[in-house]
Amino acid sequence: MTPNIDSLLPLLFPLLQAFPVAEREKLLAVGHEHDATAGTVLWEEGQRIDDILFISSGIVVATSNTQAAGRFFLYGHMAAGSVAGLHALQMPNAAQVQLTVQEDAHYLQLPLSALSEALAAYPAAWEAVARELAQGVFHLVNTINLLAQSNGYHRLRRLLIQLDRRARNEHQQSGLALSQQELAARIGLSREMVNRMLAQLRSGGYLEQDERGIFKILQPLPREF
Amino acid sequence: MTPNIDSLLPLLFPLLQAFPVAEREKLLAVGHEHDATAGTVLWEEGQRIDDILFISSGIVVATSNTQAAGRFFLYGHMAAGSVAGLHALQMPNAAQVQLTVQEDAHYLQLPLSALSEALAAYPAAWEAVARELAQGVFHLVNTINLLAQSNGYHRLRRLLIQLDRRARNEHQQSGLALSQQELAARIGLSREMVNRMLAQLRSGGYLEQDERGIFKILQPLPREF
Repeated sequence: MTPNIDSLLPLLFPLLQAFPVAEREKLLAVGHEHDATAGTVLWEEGQRIDDILFISSGIVVATSNTQAAGRFFLYGHMAAGSVAGLHALQMPNAAQVQLTVQEDAHYLQLPLSALSEALAAYPAAWEAVARELAQGVFHLVNTINLLAQSNGYHRLRRLLIQLDRRARNEHQQSGLALSQQELAARIGLSREMVNRMLAQLRSGGYLEQDERGIFKILQPLPREF
Repeated sequence: MTPNIDSLLPLLFPLLQAFPVAEREKLLAVGHEHDATAGTVLWEEGQRIDDILFISSGIVVATSNTQAAGRFFLYGHMAAGSVAGLHALQMPNAAQVQLTVQEDAHYLQLPLSALSEALAAYPAAWEAVARELAQGVFHLVNTINLLAQSNGYHRLRRLLIQLDRRARNEHQQSGLALSQQELAARIGLSREMVNRMLAQLRSGGYLEQDERGIFKILQPLPREF
């Protein structure tokens, strides 16, 4: 293992595991590990992507329309195991989102060019790249289907059902609960509108939010508000 | 070349080109070519994806929320050279969109399982899969950034600028012009709202639409409506 990279870090990332040891060590030798405190902006919208980021702890949020006068949009939270920037291997490499550290994070920064070279030397690892991108496509299409609903309550209802399902299926990772402002920013609605709908759902006995802020659906949410 | 597949068809698809001749012929031998007339539904939302579709002529539109009471959302037009279903190689294979033939189309249908086997036999072709998926990620993020703007005019302005740029950069493919209803369905607004904004932009001398329906921006669109 190269001296400058934590030897446990590659275990978190199937993409790094996909390379033979020699290729992986060559790759890690040109990487740099960083600590970033909450509030640090890792990418700004529009900036050139020269590096892939492998997030190994903490939480990073992806947002867009952050410069616009209106509301920003929240893509979601990237937790340990997330990789940012892969599509820049094959597409225009201007960042389409802003990445901001929400909870103190640790990440490995790997030059795009080094990953390109490693993939040229060991093309079978493209399968792992494709897997990350396929997950991206799946989640992005879900996001669009949700955003494209013209009825604001239908968007909120769908998001709450997704969050509830995720909380039940996975061991809930601490810190991944969404604030009411984040809920609003995930579905392109105003905070006031979301707060009003949540209050009514709670008082109607449909929903509760525990002390960690995690939503739980108590009975099927009404189809219409 | 296998007898049942048009020998020119694979030339259209970098993914098919990525395989060595022997693998490609084996793959094409289990494919089927189809003609589909306008109005044919190729996939319904939620149905299981068992096949990859390689569209070699005509136009297929991808939509979502088609079953909902509200408006449907238009992802866009898939022209010759488009491939549908690739992310199902690695992700849950329920269709997230509806695919409908808009202009009589011709396509190759290839079992997902056969493509999986070919990729296992020749993993370097995953690079071509990753490329298709990276394009998907790029366009989906663009779509979200557009949809997430809370101001309807800002969405329309951004879409018109994209369409104008594309028309100038590419040799415009006939049939890819968007009707006013399609424009509205691309940005999640009502047809009436879009028609009203377009009429004002036209009368203000900002915009013209030629006889094929293709938009051209005559002077920079105002920042606010």
